[in-house]
Amino acid sequence: MKPLKLGMVGGGQGAFIGGVHRIAARIDGQWELVAGALSSDAERARASAAELNIAPDRAYTSFEAMAEAEAAREDGIDAVAIVTPNHMHAAPALAFLKAGIHVICDKPLAATREQADAIAAAQRESGKLFILTHNYTGYPLIRQAREMVANGDLGDIRVVHVNYVQDWLAEVPDPDNKQADWRTDPARSGAGGCIGDIGTHAFNLASFVTGLKTEGVAADLDAFVPGRQVDDNVHVMLRFAGGAKGMLWASQVAVGNENALTLRVHGTKGGLEWAQENPNVMTFSRLGEPKQILTRAGAGASGAANRVSRTPGGHPEGYLEGFATIYNEAAALVRHARDGTPLPEGLHVPDIEDGLDGMRFISASLASSAANGVWTPLV
Amino acid sequence: MKPLKLGMVGGGQGAFIGGVHRIAARIDGQWELVAGALSSDAERARASAAELNIAPDRAYTSFEAMAEAEAAREDGIDAVAIVTPNHMHAAPALAFLKAGIHVICDKPLAATREQADAIAAAQRESGKLFILTHNYTGYPLIRQAREMVANGDLGDIRVVHVNYVQDWLAEVPDPDNKQADWRTDPARSGAGGCIGDIGTHAFNLASFVTGLKTEGVAADLDAFVPGRQVDDNVHVMLRFAGGAKGMLWASQVAVGNENALTLRVHGTKGGLEWAQENPNVMTFSRLGEPKQILTRAGAGASGAANRVSRTPGGHPEGYLEGFATIYNEAAALVRHARDGTPLPEGLHVPDIEDGLDGMRFISASLASSAANGVWTPLV
Amino acid sequence: MKPLKLGMVGGGQGAFIGGVHRIAARIDGQWELVAGALSSDAERARASAAELNIAPDRAYTSFEAMAEAEAAREDGIDAVAIVTPNHMHAAPALAFLKAGIHVICDKPLAATREQADAIAAAQRESGKLFILTHNYTGYPLIRQAREMVANGDLGDIRVVHVNYVQDWLAEVPDPDNKQADWRTDPARSGAGGCIGDIGTHAFNLASFVTGLKTEGVAADLDAFVPGRQVDDNVHVMLRFAGGAKGMLWASQVAVGNENALTLRVHGTKGGLEWAQENPNVMTFSRLGEPKQILTRAGAGASGAANRVSRTPGGHPEGYLEGFATIYNEAAALVRHARDGTPLPEGLHVPDIEDGLDGMRFISASLASSAANGVWTPLV
Amino acid sequence: MKPLKLGMVGGGQGAFIGGVHRIAARIDGQWELVAGALSSDAERARASAAELNIAPDRAYTSFEAMAEAEAAREDGIDAVAIVTPNHMHAAPALAFLKAGIHVICDKPLAATREQADAIAAAQRESGKLFILTHNYTGYPLIRQAREMVANGDLGDIRVVHVNYVQDWLAEVPDPDNKQADWRTDPARSGAGGCIGDIGTHAFNLASFVTGLKTEGVAADLDAFVPGRQVDDNVHVMLRFAGGAKGMLWASQVAVGNENALTLRVHGTKGGLEWAQENPNVMTFSRLGEPKQILTRAGAGASGAANRVSRTPGGHPEGYLEGFATIYNEAAALVRHARDGTPLPEGLHVPDIEDGLDGMRFISASLASSAANGVWTPLV
Repeated sequence: MKPLKLGMVGGGQGAFIGGVHRIAARIDGQWELVAGALSSDAERARASAAELNIAPDRAYTSFEAMAEAEAAREDGIDAVAIVTPNHMHAAPALAFLKAGIHVICDKPLAATREQADAIAAAQRESGKLFILTHNYTGYPLIRQAREMVANGDLGDIRVVHVNYVQDWLAEVPDPDNKQADWRTDPARSGAGGCIGDIGTHAFNLASFVTGLKTEGVAADLDAFVPGRQVDDNVHVMLRFAGGAKGMLWASQVAVGNENALTLRVHGTKGGLEWAQENPNVMTFSRLGEPKQILTRAGAGASGAANRVSRTPGGHPEGYLEGFATIYNEAAALVRHARDGTPLPEGLHVPDIEDGLDGMRFISASLASSAANGVWTPLV
Repeated sequence: MKPLKLGMVGGGQGAFIGGVHRIAARIDGQWELVAGALSSDAERARASAAELNIAPDRAYTSFEAMAEAEAAREDGIDAVAIVTPNHMHAAPALAFLKAGIHVICDKPLAATREQADAIAAAQRESGKLFILTHNYTGYPLIRQAREMVANGDLGDIRVVHVNYVQDWLAEVPDPDNKQADWRTDPARSGAGGCIGDIGTHAFNLASFVTGLKTEGVAADLDAFVPGRQVDDNVHVMLRFAGGAKGMLWASQVAVGNENALTLRVHGTKGGLEWAQENPNVMTFSRLGEPKQILTRAGAGASGAANRVSRTPGGHPEGYLEGFATIYNEAAALVRHARDGTPLPEGLHVPDIEDGLDGMRFISASLASSAANGVWTPLV
Repeated sequence: MKPLKLGMVGGGQGAFIGGVHRIAARIDGQWELVAGALSSDAERARASAAELNIAPDRAYTSFEAMAEAEAAREDGIDAVAIVTPNHMHAAPALAFLKAGIHVICDKPLAATREQADAIAAAQRESGKLFILTHNYTGYPLIRQAREMVANGDLGDIRVVHVNYVQDWLAEVPDPDNKQADWRTDPARSGAGGCIGDIGTHAFNLASFVTGLKTEGVAADLDAFVPGRQVDDNVHVMLRFAGGAKGMLWASQVAVGNENALTLRVHGTKGGLEWAQENPNVMTFSRLGEPKQILTRAGAGASGAANRVSRTPGGHPEGYLEGFATIYNEAAALVRHARDGTPLPEGLHVPDIEDGLDGMRFISASLASSAANGVWTPLV
Repeated sequence: MKPLKLGMVGGGQGAFIGGVHRIAARIDGQWELVAGALSSDAERARASAAELNIAPDRAYTSFEAMAEAEAAREDGIDAVAIVTPNHMHAAPALAFLKAGIHVICDKPLAATREQADAIAAAQRESGKLFILTHNYTGYPLIRQAREMVANGDLGDIRVVHVNYVQDWLAEVPDPDNKQADWRTDPARSGAGGCIGDIGTHAFNLASFVTGLKTEGVAADLDAFVPGRQVDDNVHVMLRFAGGAKGMLWASQVAVGNENALTLRVHGTKGGLEWAQENPNVMTFSRLGEPKQILTRAGAGASGAANRVSRTPGGHPEGYLEGFATIYNEAAALVRHARDGTPLPEGLHVPDIEDGLDGMRFISASLASSAANGVWTPLV
C-alpha cells in the first residue's frame, strides 16, 4: 500500500515538536513527507528540507504559496501538518482548508477564541478533515481506559483527578530557549500559558477517557516565576454533567517532574490509575477485590488497546508510538475520504470539537481565576 | 526508668482505634495501661479491662467516676487517652482536665466548634497538657520533610498537594459496621464526615510539614453514596499565607484505595513526595538534579528522622511506630511537666492549637461548599 | 490476661538486636521483661537493667547465675531471649534448657555444627521450647504466601528465587562498629559471614513459604573486601526435592541496598513476588490473568495473613510487628505448655529444626564453594 | 539525506520480529525497504511484498536469487536484514556476504557453532558489515550504564545480576503458535531453547554494560514443561575476568512475567539497577549516599544516553526506539563504508564477535549443565 503524502508547516531546524510529528508519521509507514514550509526564514527552510529529503521545488518559504502550489499539483499532498507556535495555527489552517487540503494541527487549537472560531468555520465550510494532535489519546491503555468506562466496568463515574506537571519553567528560562520563549509570551501562546500548553492535554485526556462533559470550573491560576506574563501553575476544580466531580492540576514549576501526566478515575464499581511516564501499565480495582495491574498487550488488554499496539506485552511502547497512532488514524480517515476505504474499528481521533472544548476550558478557567474562583460554565 | 501510668476512655471490645493507641503506648515502654472507662456498657467495660490486665478497681464504667477516682489516688494515672467517637471527646476531656490530668485525645478535636472551644478553654484554665493524636506527624520521614522545608532545602514553597483517599465507604455500609456507623452519623461525627475523619489528617500533615498558615479555602464537598448525611468526597483549593497555593482531596469513595495519604511539596529550589502506605521512602528533587530516594534511617536521613527511628534503614517501620512516637513524645512532655526532665530535641506533638486549626478547616470548608465554593477564610 | 515473664541474655547498652527483641516482646502485651544478664561487664549490666526497669536483684552478670536463680524463684521467668553474637548462643541455651526454662534464640542457631548439635540435644532432653527468631516469617503476607503455596494456588512449584542483599559492609568497617566487628570475625560469627548472618534468613524464608526441602546446593562464595576473613557475597544454586530449582543471592557489598530481602516463587499455575522493604504488598499472578496486588489486610488477604495483622490495609505494619508475631506465638506456645491453653490456628514458629536446617545450608554451601561449586547435599 | 535501501529475508505475513525490524528501520528515516524474500511460499512472499509497497520485481521467493539480483542492480540494496528462525540465519548470511552485501541479522547468531563459525568466516572474507540485533543495547540508559561503568562511577565491578524472565511458554503451546513452534524445536532453534532465545540477550546485556569478559559458567538448565525438548529455565553462575561474579536467570515459565529483563551491577563505589519494562529510569547509588533515579534525557542523563534519545525526559521511549538505534547506527556504518561519512561519537553496534560470544555462552552452559554444573570455560 502506497504511503500518503504529507506536507508540514513549521518544524524547521531547531524546532522540537515538528521532529516528533515526523517520526510519528513514519512509524507505521502510512505517510511520506514530501513538502514543507518549514521555516519563514528562506535559508533555514531550504536547509531543513534538504535534511529531510524534500525535493527543492517543494521546499516552500510561505505556507500560502505551499497551499496554492500543492493544491494545484496532481501529486499534491494528502494532508498538511501544522506544527507552529499557537498564534500561528489559524492562518495556515485557513489557507490549507480553503485550498481543500486536510489539516493535522498541533494543540491547543489556537491562541485566541477568535482564531479558533475562524478555523472551525473554515473546517465546516471546506468539509475537510481537521485532526488535533492530542497525542496522549493514542496510548493503548488510554484507549482501554475509555473502553472500560464506556463498558461500565467502573460503574457511574464519581471522581476524576488529572495532573500534568513539569518543572522546566521553574525559573526564568535562558533567553535562547526557543521552546520556553514563545510559550511564556502571551502574544504567541495566547492568554493562557501552562493551561494552554499542558492544561489542555490534561483536560482532553480526562474528557476522552470518561466521556464526561465538563459543565463548569473554579480555577486558581498563578504565575509564580517573577516577571512571567502567563500562568505557570493551574488549580482547577471541575463539575461534570451528571454530577461527577474532578480536580485538575497543571504546573510548569513543580520541581522534580518531567512530564507527569497522571489520570485517576473512580466510579461506583471500580477505579483506575494511569501515568504517562510509564504508560504500559494501568491499575484497575473492582470494589472489594485486589487491585490488578493491566499491561499493554498483556493478559488483561482489551480490544481497544490491542488494536493500537505494535509490540507484545513487556516490550514497552512510548510517546512516539502513541503519537503515531494519531497519524495512523489520520491516514485511515484520509483514505476513507479519498478512496472510500472502510474505517477501522474503534478509531478515535481528536478533532475540531476537541479543539474548541480545549479553548472553552482555557477561557473559562482564566475567567474564573480572574473572578476569584467563581464557578464558571464552559461556553 | 518506670513507665508512666495511662488511663483510657473508650476502646473497649470491638473498637478499633483504642487498640491502636494501646499498642502505640506500649512500643517504647514509656506507658503502662492501668485504668480505663473502656465502655459505657458495664459488662463490656469489665470484660475489656480484664483482657487488658487492668485491675478490677480501676475498671470504671463512667469517665466522670474515673477522673475523680484517679485524681484522688496517690498512684493515679499520669494521663488519659480519649479514644471515643468525635462527639464524645469534649465531655471526658473537660472532666480530666478539670481533675488535673493530662489528656491525649484522638482527632478531630470535637464534633462541633462549641465543643472544641470548650476543650480549649478547659485546657488553658487547667494548664494541663492536651495532645492530639495526628499520628501521621510521627513518621520519621515526615519529621525530615518538615526539617528540610524549615532548612530551606526546597526554597520558598509554591505548591502543596495533599490527598487522603480511601474506598471503604464507597457503598452503604453494613449496619453492624461500628466504625462506619458513627462516622456517617452527623450526630456523632459532627457536620463533616470525610472531611473531619481524614480531611483533617491531610490538612494537618500539609501544615505540619510546610509550616504554612492556611488563609482561605474554596471547597466542593459531595455525599455520593445515596442517603449519606455527611460528605464522602472533599475537593478543596487552598491559599497559604505568603502566596503558596494548594489542593486537598479527601475521599472515602475512591475505589482502589485503602489509606492513600500522599503529600507533595514544591518550592523554588526543590520538591518532595511521600506516601503513607510505603512511609519508609520519600523522593526529593533539587531543581536540575536527579531525583533522590531518601529512606528512613538511610544515607540521607536527617537528625529529625533519626531521632524518631527505631530500626535501621531497610527494616520498615509503619503506622504503629509513627503513632508510638506521639506517645513517646507525650511521655517526655508529661515527665517534663512532672519532674522537670529536659525535653528531647526536636519534639513536635500536635496540640490544642492543631486541633482548633482542624476545626477551622472543617467549618470553613463546609461554609465554602455551601456557598458554591466561595473563598472562605479560616477563622 | 497477665503478661508472661521474660529474661534476656545479651542486649545491653550499645547492642542492636536486643532492643528489637524487647520492642517485639512488648508490642502485643504478652511479655514483661523482668530479668537479664544483659552484659558480661558488671557495670554495663547494671546500668542497662536500670534503664529497662529491671529490678536490681534480677540484673545478673552471668547467664549461669541467672539460669539458676530464675529457675529457683517462684516468680521466675517463663522464657529467656538469647540475643548474643552467634558463638555465644550455645552456652546460655544449654544453661537455660537444663534449668528447665524455654528459650527464644536469635539466628543463626550457632557458630558451629557442634554447638548446634549440642543445643538440639539439650532441647530434646529438656523437652523445653526452643524458638529461633527467623523474624521474616512473621510478616503477614509471608504467612499468606505460605498458605497460597500450600493451597495449590501456584500449582507445582518450579522456580524459587530469593535474595538478601545489603551494602553496609562494602568497605572495611570502622573499628568501633560493634555490629560489623563480630560479624566479620570467624571466631564469633562462625565460618560463614554473610551466609550465616543473612543467607540463612533468605534460605529459611524460601523454605518456609514453599515448604520445599532443599536437597543440594552449588555455591560460589566470595570475600570481596580486602582482608575480610569471611564471605561477604554468596551465590547459590538450589535443587529442591521434587525437582524445583532455585537461586539464592546474599550480599553485604551490593552498593545501593539496605535490607533487600526479596522472594519470588513460580509454579505451574501462578507466581508471586514479595519484598521485605515494602512488606505490605505482594504481587500474585495466575497464568494468563492480570497480575494482582495483594495488600496486607486488604481485599485479597487470607486467613493466615489476617490472623497476624494488627492494623487495617493501608496502615503499614513493618519489621517490628513481624518480629512481634514471633514473640506472640512464642507466648502462645509457652501458655500452652504451662497452662494447656489451646494453640491458635495457623501458628508457625521457627524452631530447632529450622535452626539445624540453616546450619546444614551454611556448611553445605561452604563445602561446595571450597570444592569449586560441586553440588553438595544438605546433611 | 536520501535513505539507504534495505532488503529483508523472512518477515512475511504472520511473522513477528520482521515487523519490529521494519518499524525500527523506519523510525529515524535512515532506511527504505525496497526488496524482500519475505517467505519461501511464493504466494505469501508476493502478498507480503505488496502490503509493504515493495515493487513486484524485487519481491523474491528465494534469498539466493535475491542476493544475486540485488548485487547486480545499480540501485541494489545497501544491506539485508535477516529475520528468519535461528537455523535459517547462516545460509542467507553467507549468500549476501558473498554477494558483497552488508548483513543485519537477528540473534542468536545461528542454531549451531558450525553455522556461526561459517558466518564469521564469510564475514571476515567479505569484509562486509555484520550487525547483530541485540536490540536492548540500544536503550539510552543502557548506553549510559555502560558509560558510567567505563568512567569508573561504580568503581571496580564485583557483582552482576541479570535476569530475563517470561511466562509465555509455561504450558505446552497451541500448535498454531508459530513463534512458540520453532523456538521449542531443536531443529530450528538449536540445542538451546530459552538460553538461546533470551538467555543470550541477558548475557549480551551484562557484557555490554560491564565490559567484562566471562571466563566460566556453572549452569543448571531445565525443561519444566512436559515433553519440551529444549530448556525453558536457565540458572547460570558466572565468573568474570578480574574476579567479579554474576548470576543469570532466564526463564520462559516464570508465571507473572512478560519480558522482565533486569540488570543490576554493583561495584566498589556504586551500584545501578535497570529494568527493560520501564526502560526510561535507572537507579544509581553511590556508596553512602541516597539512591538517585536517573531518567532518560533527564537531569542526570549522560552524553551516551542523550546521543541516542529522541524525546525529552518524561516522554517515554520504548522497545522500538531502542531497536531503531541499532538500525540508525547500522546506517551510519554503511554510509561510512560506502561514502566515508564520519562515524558518530559513541557508536556501539553488536557485531559478529558478540554473536560468537553468545554462541560460546550457549554451548558452555549446555555443557556445564550436562556435566552436573561443573564450571566450564567459554571457548
